[in-house]
Amino acid sequence: MSQAGTPSSPSLKARRGLVVFSGGQDSTTCLHWALREFGSVEAVFFDYGQRHAAEIQAAATIAQRLSVPLKVFKLDFFRELGGNALVDQAMAIEAMPEGGGLPNTFVPGRNLIFLTYAASYAFTRGIHDLVTGVCQTDYSGYPDCRDATIKSLEQALGQGLGWNDSGRPPTQAGGFAIHTPLMFRTKADSVHWAAELGALQSLAFSHTCYEGAFPPCGKCPACLLRKKGFEEAGIADPLETRASLGNA
Amino acid sequence: MSQAGTPSSPSLKARRGLVVFSGGQDSTTCLHWALREFGSVEAVFFDYGQRHAAEIQAAATIAQRLSVPLKVFKLDFFRELGGNALVDQAMAIEAMPEGGGLPNTFVPGRNLIFLTYAASYAFTRGIHDLVTGVCQTDYSGYPDCRDATIKSLEQALGQGLGWNDSGRPPTQAGGFAIHTPLMFRTKADSVHWAAELGALQSLAFSHTCYEGAFPPCGKCPACLLRKKGFEEAGIADPLETRASLGNA
Repeated sequence: MSQAGTPSSPSLKARRGLVVFSGGQDSTTCLHWALREFGSVEAVFFDYGQRHAAEIQAAATIAQRLSVPLKVFKLDFFRELGGNALVDQAMAIEAMPEGGGLPNTFVPGRNLIFLTYAASYAFTRGIHDLVTGVCQTDYSGYPDCRDATIKSLEQALGQGLGWNDSGRPPTQAGGFAIHTPLMFRTKADSVHWAAELGALQSLAFSHTCYEGAFPPCGKCPACLLRKKGFEEAGIADPLETRASLGNA
Repeated sequence: MSQAGTPSSPSLKARRGLVVFSGGQDSTTCLHWALREFGSVEAVFFDYGQRHAAEIQAAATIAQRLSVPLKVFKLDFFRELGGNALVDQAMAIEAMPEGGGLPNTFVPGRNLIFLTYAASYAFTRGIHDLVTGVCQTDYSGYPDCRDATIKSLEQALGQGLGWNDSGRPPTQAGGFAIHTPLMFRTKADSVHWAAELGALQSLAFSHTCYEGAFPPCGKCPACLLRKKGFEEAGIADPLETRASLGNA
């Protein structure tokens, strides 16, 4: 797993990256990082029955602006699984539980499945590098965002697709890598870094609000986390600027 | 990961097992093993666009005969991914390539995705033990059937669902385990063991043939592998006996 920051890693220029892209703040920043690092970049979006269409619209808009090919897969599994507020319209989004436990927005196995699907798709494209915006620092109680999870999944996927057969390290030719450039960044850090990467213009079109609202509701856990990050970074959120201009 | 054989492990009696069930020979044998080992057993079937309906019929018949609850999930992903003979009606099934390489029946990530889905479903049922019939000995060139793959996936899934947080070993309370009782058995071994487990009657209703035929075609790689196992074990295949009786 590469936690590559600046400066860019010349070794990745010979490789192609596949970004797991939700149209949100973190994966948009990662998409810009990938465009800087890799020789070429593609993106994959998972339509898993989210509450609203705003996410896919954001993803399509940003990918198109950046001329990145975007593949959309529809996954009905999580809706059928049910029991969480992100796919179940009848459940109210709850803030993070104080005692530790899992928030009711936890979709069990979501990132595991996204990354496994992405790896299968990458296999058919001959791509050995996945990029995901998961972040342990602000992981919202989701255990599948943690570094330990991603590291072990990187092993499992590389083995399962026959890419790590000869013990190749992930960052060498033939090895399989999951890149998590945001893993240990705070939200404020990520905002600074997005500015450095030239991602702010894309972030104006990114989607964060759990309620699917534009302008964002400003009250759900996702909106609050985003707001805190931009405030601490001392940078105006381009999404709010866009909203204040009435530019939907 | 437990490679538990005989005698039964008393510790599993307090746990519930979820069997990844295809209605085939290996997972049917595993289902019987699970029924012997666990306090209670459920099964999950993945309808991923296989060429024919024979698999799901076999799974439903066997589960019903054994009074095991069977949950079916429909996965369109592999069909959309395409490019392999198991989901693509236009491709002929090829025997295993001689030089090594991957057979054209390789569905990239299939077992990774089945097990990840099964773990997510198990999470919602409070189940910590998966059982799968994957086998390294006769792995047909599929890298996701190997022990190294399953061991690393066990880690990733346990971490990703928050089950291995406190470093609990898979076989202790709270830990997450993938049981692979057939991993190091030859097909002949598995047939002997199926007889020992009392699974032969179920195997009469199991489905193996890639062509979806009943009586089985006897010529596809899956039929040949099954035939070889029963012959080497010196046991009559109850599926052939059933076919010869004209009992569809």
